[in-house]
Amino acid sequence: MPHITAFARNQWYVAAFTYEVGRELVGRTVLGEPLVLYRAEMDGAAVVLSDRCVHRRFPLSASRLDGDRIVCGYHGFTYDTTGACVGVPGQTRIPRSARVTSYPVVEQDLFVWVWIGDPAIADPASVPRAAHMDSPDWTTVSGMEPVEADYGLLVDNLLDLSHETYLHGGYIGTPEVAETPITTEVDKEAGVVRVSRRMADAACPPFYARSTGIEGRITRWQDIEYHAPCLYLLHSRIAPAGVLPEADGSDPAAFHTEITYAITPSAEGRVYDFWAVSRDFARSDDGVSAFMRDLNHTVVMQDVEALDLLQRTLASEPAGYREVSVGIDAGGLAARRILARLVEEGDKPGEGVR
Amino acid sequence: MPHITAFARNQWYVAAFTYEVGRELVGRTVLGEPLVLYRAEMDGAAVVLSDRCVHRRFPLSASRLDGDRIVCGYHGFTYDTTGACVGVPGQTRIPRSARVTSYPVVEQDLFVWVWIGDPAIADPASVPRAAHMDSPDWTTVSGMEPVEADYGLLVDNLLDLSHETYLHGGYIGTPEVAETPITTEVDKEAGVVRVSRRMADAACPPFYARSTGIEGRITRWQDIEYHAPCLYLLHSRIAPAGVLPEADGSDPAAFHTEITYAITPSAEGRVYDFWAVSRDFARSDDGVSAFMRDLNHTVVMQDVEALDLLQRTLASEPAGYREVSVGIDAGGLAARRILARLVEEGDKPGEGVR
Amino acid sequence: MPHITAFARNQWYVAAFTYEVGRELVGRTVLGEPLVLYRAEMDGAAVVLSDRCVHRRFPLSASRLDGDRIVCGYHGFTYDTTGACVGVPGQTRIPRSARVTSYPVVEQDLFVWVWIGDPAIADPASVPRAAHMDSPDWTTVSGMEPVEADYGLLVDNLLDLSHETYLHGGYIGTPEVAETPITTEVDKEAGVVRVSRRMADAACPPFYARSTGIEGRITRWQDIEYHAPCLYLLHSRIAPAGVLPEADGSDPAAFHTEITYAITPSAEGRVYDFWAVSRDFARSDDGVSAFMRDLNHTVVMQDVEALDLLQRTLASEPAGYREVSVGIDAGGLAARRILARLVEEGDKPGEGVR
Repeated sequence: MPHITAFARNQWYVAAFTYEVGRELVGRTVLGEPLVLYRAEMDGAAVVLSDRCVHRRFPLSASRLDGDRIVCGYHGFTYDTTGACVGVPGQTRIPRSARVTSYPVVEQDLFVWVWIGDPAIADPASVPRAAHMDSPDWTTVSGMEPVEADYGLLVDNLLDLSHETYLHGGYIGTPEVAETPITTEVDKEAGVVRVSRRMADAACPPFYARSTGIEGRITRWQDIEYHAPCLYLLHSRIAPAGVLPEADGSDPAAFHTEITYAITPSAEGRVYDFWAVSRDFARSDDGVSAFMRDLNHTVVMQDVEALDLLQRTLASEPAGYREVSVGIDAGGLAARRILARLVEEGDKPGEGVR
Repeated sequence: MPHITAFARNQWYVAAFTYEVGRELVGRTVLGEPLVLYRAEMDGAAVVLSDRCVHRRFPLSASRLDGDRIVCGYHGFTYDTTGACVGVPGQTRIPRSARVTSYPVVEQDLFVWVWIGDPAIADPASVPRAAHMDSPDWTTVSGMEPVEADYGLLVDNLLDLSHETYLHGGYIGTPEVAETPITTEVDKEAGVVRVSRRMADAACPPFYARSTGIEGRITRWQDIEYHAPCLYLLHSRIAPAGVLPEADGSDPAAFHTEITYAITPSAEGRVYDFWAVSRDFARSDDGVSAFMRDLNHTVVMQDVEALDLLQRTLASEPAGYREVSVGIDAGGLAARRILARLVEEGDKPGEGVR
Repeated sequence: MPHITAFARNQWYVAAFTYEVGRELVGRTVLGEPLVLYRAEMDGAAVVLSDRCVHRRFPLSASRLDGDRIVCGYHGFTYDTTGACVGVPGQTRIPRSARVTSYPVVEQDLFVWVWIGDPAIADPASVPRAAHMDSPDWTTVSGMEPVEADYGLLVDNLLDLSHETYLHGGYIGTPEVAETPITTEVDKEAGVVRVSRRMADAACPPFYARSTGIEGRITRWQDIEYHAPCLYLLHSRIAPAGVLPEADGSDPAAFHTEITYAITPSAEGRVYDFWAVSRDFARSDDGVSAFMRDLNHTVVMQDVEALDLLQRTLASEPAGYREVSVGIDAGGLAARRILARLVEEGDKPGEGVR
């Protein structure tokens, strides 16, 4: 594998959707750390603990809940919501060192965000927002797929939408996506990459034709906003060809869709692809919800299959090959530079290290 | 994988049950050595040879018997019961070096024991006994399951029966097993670990309730006797609560069960789990035999699944973690120390080496 | 794995049958190099290009054809039949370095031969011939199976036909094949090994009994001609026992079969087994064609299964074992020496290197 994108540890990552975390233990691996997630009865908060029992390393996610305590499925070591061991079989004394790591958690915008790095510098205020996900003004469908690929391949994929034309033709891609040049803007300080593609007169792909009811050509805007390393927002605007927003900024004749991805490195060669599609139209139409869920799931699976294949292809390639990059790669290359900087800064002594 | 238990080579190991070895060639791998087993017509004895043809290394277990000779399935090299090559295609001259290793074998107590290490020090008298397995006073059911785990994980598992409560609840575990403290006794010289748990007043698990017909609470004794590295005996005594053996040592009101395991390292990360359950009650009752066979098989599969999972979990863990051990681990830790000593002694020059 | 046969790069290898290469993109890997193959509309010629897009390394074989151009299935980079990139999304300028390797190709005798090494020394005239494959005087059935084994194991297999008796008994093997000594002739200069086995009075195996209609004993000749590294020819002559060719060399009473193999290393531990059976009798009988195709496919699958097993067996064997070789191995050992020389010469500086 010629380039593997390293993990930036001192960052927030999405471990789950809030609706996935309940009274069943859920196992996830983030940045190579196995986690067990559940929701406490006591206060309804999501709990995220290390998924290895201190005793013989059995996965707690293969165990069971007793109230808000996890009872290890192998020998019954018992943990409270802070990760402290509160019960050991055959004796009343609990070893002082018996504790599993508890991870900082923020539940926000339908996501459960976790912090794997140095907890001393975990700032809940720095979790990037995707407020539409949980807003009464939007209707959202969502899902998650694991991909057997370096997370950098998913970042590449999402930052360069020209692939919609080829990989997702007949779903969300039309010739104009690949043909239309992009503009790229990078905020190095904030770690944000913006890529815009404004198509003035384009074919309407089935994803939008059927959900909006538009017939004929469209004006289509794609404005990407990538908050490295994890949150990817695609602001999508669809309107009949030539229809622009009003002078006052209102935009009643257009259809807006917020497409959200959380890109969470699970382990080397494995990434969680959390996806959501939020719309401001046909908001109570369950048929449109079902259609957008099914079709976006299909599109995500096309990406999964392509990235799985690409990962295997790269794995069999000798080291030292050179990629050829062109204009469409400006966003992806900027993202790689920011990720490299986050890794480097996060690993500086005194600033939070592994 | 943080700790892999090394192989003690100069020891006896169970390669098969005697009833598995007949006129069909059986392939087994013990301590990483591939073996082919069969029973000679001539004298009815089990033959254990290296499973690789001297010519091009084809597995003899994928070949066929011609009388008491194995004819290699690839080019027909032929071996007698001593491993000597006695036939070569296309010529009458047999190369002098053409011989596969023949291993020392002891058939005893329903087990086929083999010696992989230095044959000069293989002493049949040192094979540990499990005489109940083949005794007219006991009725035995048995089976074997391969486990994709370090054999040390199976030793850990069997030396600490508090896991019955959690992993085997509803089968052989009740709360009292985990709650009741153990006593541990170690005979370093003989390489034997004894762990006893005496429950005076306990619930009767389904395994015993249905097989013995006891209703209500029981007195339950579990006396482990582990003869490192391979043979594990669990002497189990079940009686109505409060009923003890007579003063003269007789014990007519109790139900005795001998649970036998042979723990044979197959290769790194792979172990054979030979199991048997022998009882001194309802000895001719086929329904009880079928019930005990089915239920113990289910229990063994719960262990297999848990250890397979544990092995994968440990494989993904960075080196250097620390286990937390408590009282219940006294037997398992003693066993680890004995295994380490056996490995070290067996590898001393002059005492039998790889 | 004790001995892996290295790849001789500056040699011709069969990548496909000509009939496999058409308007569907085909992916093959030869000597570890992923290739995409198709047939150009323009001139009907087979095109062989590197299977990794210059942009992000996506496999072109998972893409589609647009006329004679491949359009990458990920971002639409477009290549002509020479491997030159002729289209890039979002811009008209094509980077000068954008080109995938195009490999020398020779289509001959039903085979698509490719040259992976130094193209400067690829000589089409040096492709070995198997003219019967495509001759009006012969009727041919053929197929290909990938084997999960070092290609050296397939060379060993085919150079020593005594395995027919044991691995293919009941199909093409009879006792006489293993019993009859061989004569071996080696042309080091040309890299050709010849192994002959002449059975004067042998049982007729089902493969020939049913296809020729011969009843009773036969005279059976097997004359191997191995052109290292890739082409293996087995000239087979079957006649009623005692019937020899005429004094003038004509041979009207015999049945001739040309059995052709192309042995193409795909990657480490993987080889393509191209096979064909050509006959000069019952040439228009579709029943005989179907029978020979089915039966030879069965025989090939017996080899595949045995070599897959042998590869796994060798992989688990510690380094340093010694094979025992006997008379039947003369051809295989000569082939190994020639392959070692081809590797060494091909890797000499100035003569064409990796």
